[in-house]
Amino acid sequence: MLHLASKTAPDWLPRVSAHLDEVLLDHAHCEKKAAGAGMKLLFAYPYHRFLQEPIAELAREELDHFQQILAVLDGRGVVYETIRPSPYGMALHGLVRREEPERLLDFLTISALIEARSCERFQILATGLADAALRDLYGSLLESEARHHGVYFELAIELVGREVADVRMRELAEQEAAIIAKPCDWVRLHAG
Amino acid sequence: MLHLASKTAPDWLPRVSAHLDEVLLDHAHCEKKAAGAGMKLLFAYPYHRFLQEPIAELAREELDHFQQILAVLDGRGVVYETIRPSPYGMALHGLVRREEPERLLDFLTISALIEARSCERFQILATGLADAALRDLYGSLLESEARHHGVYFELAIELVGREVADVRMRELAEQEAAIIAKPCDWVRLHAG
Repeated sequence: MLHLASKTAPDWLPRVSAHLDEVLLDHAHCEKKAAGAGMKLLFAYPYHRFLQEPIAELAREELDHFQQILAVLDGRGVVYETIRPSPYGMALHGLVRREEPERLLDFLTISALIEARSCERFQILATGLADAALRDLYGSLLESEARHHGVYFELAIELVGREVADVRMRELAEQEAAIIAKPCDWVRLHAG
Repeated sequence: MLHLASKTAPDWLPRVSAHLDEVLLDHAHCEKKAAGAGMKLLFAYPYHRFLQEPIAELAREELDHFQQILAVLDGRGVVYETIRPSPYGMALHGLVRREEPERLLDFLTISALIEARSCERFQILATGLADAALRDLYGSLLESEARHHGVYFELAIELVGREVADVRMRELAEQEAAIIAKPCDWVRLHAG
């Protein structure tokens, strides 16, 4: 139950396979950004006690994934360097409202959707990539992403109640589907 | 070998014991800030490949410590909330030079010194606190802090070589000793 409003298009996998090193590099940065986004929440909301452990735990796991992907990059001889990110994260975060608790609700919901999209795409990679070791890696990572999706959504429910959280999830899931579908000239984990 | 230029004054422990809940709360924030400082380095220096895993690993451990201290606070019925930090961190970071690689060298050296001071004070808590469970906790944490001190200093050496790193460590250790010795009206992990 990932709350996504769309499925990834079938042409994404062959495009990833043709630019695998670049997508792995993008993936490393995505894990680091996911950990960073969690840290930001910990600092921004010290008064929301209920967030602290779940998000600290989650950030630790994202850092662990970051290290795992760095090891993959090293094994493939890919230099870890900055690359142009997909417009996805910035576009999603542009939807965050200014007032509280809407602001935090939106952050949590968007984080839940990013985890959901990662999970959906890791499933595609876990079955469709040519490299068996990478298939296994994505198979293990997708379980974490599914769990993280659940953690963020449960925190959203704890913040505003199930009804309000459900409504906002449906709204933002529609927006997420529109954003991820936009054509992008470079291949990324979160690009069309 | 913690490179500290001073020892904590003997009156620190009785002051901590008299304000233990407050110091534990400060400690929770210190662990979160340590993780946050590591994350900042990961984002600021993607081109320094050698930093990435050691600091990701370290940030994960700081987050784990943060969770451990939150559990202690909960067990004592202390509400996790923002408190006024000691001036220590800001004073130390005010010593960071602007140009690279001096800027990164200073960040690494200051981080190494903060870990060292934590280690030295955790040793005092591990032997001097009345509560046996807290003594054990600080006994386990001080090993990590000693290791983190070593990680940061080794990274500084990798950046600029041992000779330059040693000189800057001695300079900043003197400054750290002066900063930590300044009288402070509230009791903190890193206050005089």
